[in-house]
Amino acid sequence: MSSFGRLFKITTFGESHSSHVGVTIENFPPNFKINLDMIQKQLNRRRPGQSIISTPRNESDIIEIITGTENNITLGTMLTIVVKNKNTKPEDYKWKKEYVPRPSHADYTYISKYGIHAASGGGRSSARETIGRVIAGAVAEQWLKEKYNIEIIAWVNSVGNIESDCNSHIINRDIVDQNIIRCPEQNQAEKMINYITILKEQGNSIGGTIKCVCKNVPIGLGEPVFDKMEALLAHGMLSIPACKGFEIGSGFAGSKMTGLHHNDPFIVKDNKITTLTNNSGGIQGGISNGENIDFKVAFKPPASISIEQKTVTLDKKETTLEAGGRHDPCVVNRAVPIIESMAALVIMDLLLIQKIK
Amino acid sequence: MSSFGRLFKITTFGESHSSHVGVTIENFPPNFKINLDMIQKQLNRRRPGQSIISTPRNESDIIEIITGTENNITLGTMLTIVVKNKNTKPEDYKWKKEYVPRPSHADYTYISKYGIHAASGGGRSSARETIGRVIAGAVAEQWLKEKYNIEIIAWVNSVGNIESDCNSHIINRDIVDQNIIRCPEQNQAEKMINYITILKEQGNSIGGTIKCVCKNVPIGLGEPVFDKMEALLAHGMLSIPACKGFEIGSGFAGSKMTGLHHNDPFIVKDNKITTLTNNSGGIQGGISNGENIDFKVAFKPPASISIEQKTVTLDKKETTLEAGGRHDPCVVNRAVPIIESMAALVIMDLLLIQKIK
Amino acid sequence: MSSFGRLFKITTFGESHSSHVGVTIENFPPNFKINLDMIQKQLNRRRPGQSIISTPRNESDIIEIITGTENNITLGTMLTIVVKNKNTKPEDYKWKKEYVPRPSHADYTYISKYGIHAASGGGRSSARETIGRVIAGAVAEQWLKEKYNIEIIAWVNSVGNIESDCNSHIINRDIVDQNIIRCPEQNQAEKMINYITILKEQGNSIGGTIKCVCKNVPIGLGEPVFDKMEALLAHGMLSIPACKGFEIGSGFAGSKMTGLHHNDPFIVKDNKITTLTNNSGGIQGGISNGENIDFKVAFKPPASISIEQKTVTLDKKETTLEAGGRHDPCVVNRAVPIIESMAALVIMDLLLIQKIK
Amino acid sequence: MSSFGRLFKITTFGESHSSHVGVTIENFPPNFKINLDMIQKQLNRRRPGQSIISTPRNESDIIEIITGTENNITLGTMLTIVVKNKNTKPEDYKWKKEYVPRPSHADYTYISKYGIHAASGGGRSSARETIGRVIAGAVAEQWLKEKYNIEIIAWVNSVGNIESDCNSHIINRDIVDQNIIRCPEQNQAEKMINYITILKEQGNSIGGTIKCVCKNVPIGLGEPVFDKMEALLAHGMLSIPACKGFEIGSGFAGSKMTGLHHNDPFIVKDNKITTLTNNSGGIQGGISNGENIDFKVAFKPPASISIEQKTVTLDKKETTLEAGGRHDPCVVNRAVPIIESMAALVIMDLLLIQKIK
Repeated sequence: MSSFGRLFKITTFGESHSSHVGVTIENFPPNFKINLDMIQKQLNRRRPGQSIISTPRNESDIIEIITGTENNITLGTMLTIVVKNKNTKPEDYKWKKEYVPRPSHADYTYISKYGIHAASGGGRSSARETIGRVIAGAVAEQWLKEKYNIEIIAWVNSVGNIESDCNSHIINRDIVDQNIIRCPEQNQAEKMINYITILKEQGNSIGGTIKCVCKNVPIGLGEPVFDKMEALLAHGMLSIPACKGFEIGSGFAGSKMTGLHHNDPFIVKDNKITTLTNNSGGIQGGISNGENIDFKVAFKPPASISIEQKTVTLDKKETTLEAGGRHDPCVVNRAVPIIESMAALVIMDLLLIQKIK
Repeated sequence: MSSFGRLFKITTFGESHSSHVGVTIENFPPNFKINLDMIQKQLNRRRPGQSIISTPRNESDIIEIITGTENNITLGTMLTIVVKNKNTKPEDYKWKKEYVPRPSHADYTYISKYGIHAASGGGRSSARETIGRVIAGAVAEQWLKEKYNIEIIAWVNSVGNIESDCNSHIINRDIVDQNIIRCPEQNQAEKMINYITILKEQGNSIGGTIKCVCKNVPIGLGEPVFDKMEALLAHGMLSIPACKGFEIGSGFAGSKMTGLHHNDPFIVKDNKITTLTNNSGGIQGGISNGENIDFKVAFKPPASISIEQKTVTLDKKETTLEAGGRHDPCVVNRAVPIIESMAALVIMDLLLIQKIK
Repeated sequence: MSSFGRLFKITTFGESHSSHVGVTIENFPPNFKINLDMIQKQLNRRRPGQSIISTPRNESDIIEIITGTENNITLGTMLTIVVKNKNTKPEDYKWKKEYVPRPSHADYTYISKYGIHAASGGGRSSARETIGRVIAGAVAEQWLKEKYNIEIIAWVNSVGNIESDCNSHIINRDIVDQNIIRCPEQNQAEKMINYITILKEQGNSIGGTIKCVCKNVPIGLGEPVFDKMEALLAHGMLSIPACKGFEIGSGFAGSKMTGLHHNDPFIVKDNKITTLTNNSGGIQGGISNGENIDFKVAFKPPASISIEQKTVTLDKKETTLEAGGRHDPCVVNRAVPIIESMAALVIMDLLLIQKIK
Repeated sequence: MSSFGRLFKITTFGESHSSHVGVTIENFPPNFKINLDMIQKQLNRRRPGQSIISTPRNESDIIEIITGTENNITLGTMLTIVVKNKNTKPEDYKWKKEYVPRPSHADYTYISKYGIHAASGGGRSSARETIGRVIAGAVAEQWLKEKYNIEIIAWVNSVGNIESDCNSHIINRDIVDQNIIRCPEQNQAEKMINYITILKEQGNSIGGTIKCVCKNVPIGLGEPVFDKMEALLAHGMLSIPACKGFEIGSGFAGSKMTGLHHNDPFIVKDNKITTLTNNSGGIQGGISNGENIDFKVAFKPPASISIEQKTVTLDKKETTLEAGGRHDPCVVNRAVPIIESMAALVIMDLLLIQKIK
């Protein structure tokens, strides 16, 4: 149950302290030249230690293709790409009754589920698992760009109450990367950075939202019933650690509109059928309509904070926890490439599915 | 690609004008006495024509088990349950260039995808597809209730800008069904009904939101990576026609909070580890933590309105469309049992998955 | 776990005494005119009561498409096709300790597995389950024939020790159907029929083998590792009730040959690369090579015989059983269309899979 | 499409000249101590260069667990185990029209399927792919042995026309490994070895058969319709390179028997219901009946021979090929652990499936 996708199926593996983390990728087409630099570049955007607002933990995360290519050309077989973990010494550790599960972390639920938990680091729930997603997404993106000119761009829309309002039509990744918070509205970006810096000093953390647009997605992708495109996108996004909400097109705001205002009128433009508005977010009846795919995602504040919190031990004694270590005060800037990757995986999968019709 | 679930897998079938709609249900446990009345009751809550605010189309929708039981006791084999369609005469219909796809409907995307569309009614995108979901959900619910005392209750939280604020701890389905809009706050319910009645007279429609709570879900359900419980719930909810957004726990509001306020402190109560708050919505690291599963879903206004709209023909001529027929001015009251059903399917599936650990 | 196929996926449902048996068919292409007569014809070849060597039980088995088409043209959605069962009155039956499981039947293993067994008839293990397979196979065959000119022909190769030796290049279904045992070698067919008639009078039964050839299968079908074409064919064939063995190409005889004699030399014929011999059975490395797909299947004698047999009760008392009822003394003639159908399902599935490369 | 299993699902990856080959294993239970020596031992039985009758290529094949354990205890997450390839320099190679596909190899079908083929070695069709299967099978076996006392033993039954006749009840792996051909009947083993030695000197090769018995398999494993235990075993076995046939229990010989002789009478022995004979091979109606699972598999002679063979170039010119290199004259002795592994995977998968009933 560690796989995502129906036909373009990826499986991630690895824990925070295993020797590697990585991903296998099924059904990538043969005879395609993989650009390793582009994968590495996208992976670097996910990396901690990029800037003063991220955790100073520095993971170099160099990718290595171990199967599926020859001279970087795909063979049509399973692609496997891995990254070495640096700190792989498992602690000599036993679960004790005195163990203190961290509030709003996965510690308590993992122990309850498996009766065991990796002693060291986050184990399988570690954010390092997302490395495999970004790698696979970057591989998919290359093909989507070359074959369909599809472009996927995510950016930070808000941090706490500081919101921005960007025009998705003019944004590209270079613009997004012009500041460390990855919000294309420069004024708001500065406010966000300042706010995060203050919270970081307090040992506190903050949530935020990310918007994403997918351009040039062909008409007809998405399955009519359970595998509607928005359902697969929602699945992918909510599977990212710390994600709390998903909206397609008008989203929750759409629930306040009347049909007359919400419906997207069809018009003819440049001799093509298109829609005047895009409240549908590019999807109607679960199937892409040729407009931009447009969605928004909410992230909670990271659970790891340095402020003392009340909690209990596994044997039900009240205690307090003051987490040490170095943590991200906000994850949205690093989550940008993860969101782009999950979107790429969904689109690639639906494209392959459409090929069998 | 018409299936939902990994182990407890359902497959719906049927179009608006085929002879039947229905569902097959895989891996339901053997030796369980199915209560047909309970299924029928839940299906009746989904039925159109229940009240003045729904479409007056009246579908009786009587369920019929055609395989998998003997004397209503399950055999451990595939359950198949169907409902007869009433109007099954396909029109003698050819796609013409002059065809006018309805704005924000699935007509245009279906034709683009398949090169064909059921001539009559909504075809596979018809809301009648959800009959199979409600049947399967009602079957699952019976087992969840008997084996784990799990209760799943959804209700209307808002219609347009009219919001309610209910305490999930005291709500049950009888309370929800006390009014036709299924909002447990009586004052707000009346406002909602009035508002919908006005819009109906105008031939317009309106969106809304639904909240759902799942009680007594055991600790440990949900898979750590892609099949986190919130990801599966989001997938299920966004696969319901007209759904535009999903939030788990604190949701989008959580993106505005700091970690210190968002984290749910562990406490001991009645000699059990529990949490003081439930911003997590009962799920941490993708896995249920024993608290109530708590989520919210947004629905857009129905696209079928009787007011004249601008649109185009398939051969790109501008025209207008004034849809006749009888339509729901708001779908949220009828969507309540569909949401409960999708939640039941997710929980049942994760319970079976947990059995193999 | 009642499904077969990866992309062209069928799911059969129904027990011997449920109201219907049938099949759902996923991912059949849209816009294809289904020929119902051809399905019915193939189903009639499976039907009991066709001839003096089959069980005199007469099942008319009229197919009914309940979803997925309009005017018999596929919509690209789930096809559901059913057949009504005639005798659907479940007996008022309780499992008793005195129950006597029939030797070499599924009674004992079903009760052990599920703790329950359909009281009436064979339940899910009934050969009536294969009705769904034949329907789905006949649907697939129509498409394979029209799009690729693929032809699939199976025939009875042996009954007990009476073997035939037919040239697959000149056989077609009309020739196969010229006699009731479906062996194209007329002399041997008569011997087989006589032999079966004698055993039938004795209340005994006999096994046999079936050969099958698939012509015009395109090069390149089959996946390199676990889903080799021969592996999927073996899976499909061994899933047919009473099947005991499978051989591709040279099969068990190939285990006695040297490489020099077994290798199929490539030659050029009519400006096409082909092979001089076909010990490979049309498959190399799991992938079709453009030659005839050639395989053989073994069936055991039916377990239902009228001669008294020793057995035990569920509470471990020795007893004897003399089965009444009317049974097939040999199943191979009726298994011919089932084998053709399973082969069609495998090829159709692999064709869809190849489309995504 | 490189996965095997429904719940206990393995995915192999790697080509002959990629940096690694390996396997990911899903749904292995948590909290189990993995014995690495046992895996390595089983892998060594598969290794080339073990004896004079195998290819002298020596692959050391040391396993490395890269994810899923801590201190060799499983975490309940994805297990990934790899082996480094030694010769990983891809040749600087271009497909040319003059390329000569080897008769009865996968070269021609791969090129036809993918339009590309690994330049070096067998690529994905290389027998090195089976390393991942043996590793996963050895992991499964440990659990099957500890939890259910299940034992799986395969041995060489015949080489060419030299057949043996062993009593499965007294065989264990130590007895099987007493000679290099892995045939427990010492006389016949010597004849087999002599025969292979002669063929090796001639540059020729020979086929053979393997028998396998699985002891202590619980009653009730196997699904009633498409995933009958024998169907999954057949699928697994026919997916092994060079496998040409599969028989369960009486197999092809059973097709010559009458029902009276073929049926396995139930008897009571040691106060347990058992069967007097085992023509069923331990499976009835697709479900294990508690007797030994008993099957036989045929392997063709290896296609790689050093004798000159007629063949053609890709641009259809006749030519001859005299393969150099070092090859196995017979694969059955090395296939023994692969067969055991595929059997273990099937049983483990069916055990997990049975857990959800």
